[in-house]
Amino acid sequence: MAQVKLLGLWYSPFSHRVEWALKIKGVEYEYIEEDLQNKSSLLLESNPVHKKIPVLIHNGKPICESLVILEYIDETFEGPSLLPKDSYHRALARFWAKFLDDKVAVVVNTFLLKGEEQEKAKQEVCEMLKVLDSELKDKKFFVADKFSFADMAANLVGLWLGVFQEASGVAVVINENFPNFCAWRDEYINCSQVKKYLPPRNDEFVAFFKALAQAAAPK
Amino acid sequence: MAQVKLLGLWYSPFSHRVEWALKIKGVEYEYIEEDLQNKSSLLLESNPVHKKIPVLIHNGKPICESLVILEYIDETFEGPSLLPKDSYHRALARFWAKFLDDKVAVVVNTFLLKGEEQEKAKQEVCEMLKVLDSELKDKKFFVADKFSFADMAANLVGLWLGVFQEASGVAVVINENFPNFCAWRDEYINCSQVKKYLPPRNDEFVAFFKALAQAAAPK
Repeated sequence: MAQVKLLGLWYSPFSHRVEWALKIKGVEYEYIEEDLQNKSSLLLESNPVHKKIPVLIHNGKPICESLVILEYIDETFEGPSLLPKDSYHRALARFWAKFLDDKVAVVVNTFLLKGEEQEKAKQEVCEMLKVLDSELKDKKFFVADKFSFADMAANLVGLWLGVFQEASGVAVVINENFPNFCAWRDEYINCSQVKKYLPPRNDEFVAFFKALAQAAAPK
Repeated sequence: MAQVKLLGLWYSPFSHRVEWALKIKGVEYEYIEEDLQNKSSLLLESNPVHKKIPVLIHNGKPICESLVILEYIDETFEGPSLLPKDSYHRALARFWAKFLDDKVAVVVNTFLLKGEEQEKAKQEVCEMLKVLDSELKDKKFFVADKFSFADMAANLVGLWLGVFQEASGVAVVINENFPNFCAWRDEYINCSQVKKYLPPRNDEFVAFFKALAQAAAPK
């Protein structure tokens, strides 16, 4: 029987993408929570380039980078497809997944940086939201009205961005200026393909990011 | 008959990746050179998010982002595969292609920035070269001893990085500290799968980047 291990972090959107994919495919796996202050030798050996989670280990072979792992899971295991069948739709899904992944740093920077650098990051997040607001008008999912790969990559903006905002008190003025994005996000969080795979947005989850934002604040 | 157009720039490594893929597959295409100072309405309509080349237009449908285009070409057209057949090898190829693409900004910054920011970019390029030097020891290609996707993404470091260095006079000390990288690069540039698809490293090519570096220098 195939042996599948996932090295992850309970609060990471990138870990959650991989767990989501494994659950959709019905793959049994062992989840190993990492400690960023004391990274395991398994993590350091499995991802020597970035030393980051998530890492999927399948039959002893490590695969790194969440979107690369999703493609691997889709190609390797039976079950519902994560990428669309049509190659043009697959290209659109990969385009939007890359777009969202390229924005990770600015989303995190609005939350962790201060002063002028934070203002710059907020501006960049606003530009990202403008693009998404235009793209998501009257849309429930990114590509061809079907849940797929890009929607899994969208967990960062669908859930975490709002939690970051609440936890840090940083207002990016999401609600007023980006109505299509907000309508999409509200449906996204509550639709069946997504809801059961996102972590609960409970007090513990928000409190964790509040503590992280406070730790990052200048002393 | 399928209609394929490529919007590109003659000096762009990203355009060249796509041309390379089309040639390997034997796809006939119309190449349209863009002017960054006066972008065509076709480019602006085809890539409204980034407004950047390359864009592949296939039967009227635009596909953006060079690595996304390579995956699309591989899935859509007959001919030799661009990605490895084995799914683990495909994951490795995607991992290295992403690694190389994530370094584009720092590679370009060593060439265009000045002063402290340039020093920081040089340091980051050195870190990238350290990783590549370790990975490429005794290797001709990135994955499974066969030319594939990651090697196409490596055109930036295989050819352009050295040209940027010559054109700007910025020494990143490639030669002394990264012998495996240099051995790989020399073989890469001259091997048959690569050589005929790279632009000639002639005086015109270097002079173009020299002029670009001078234009970017503080007045």
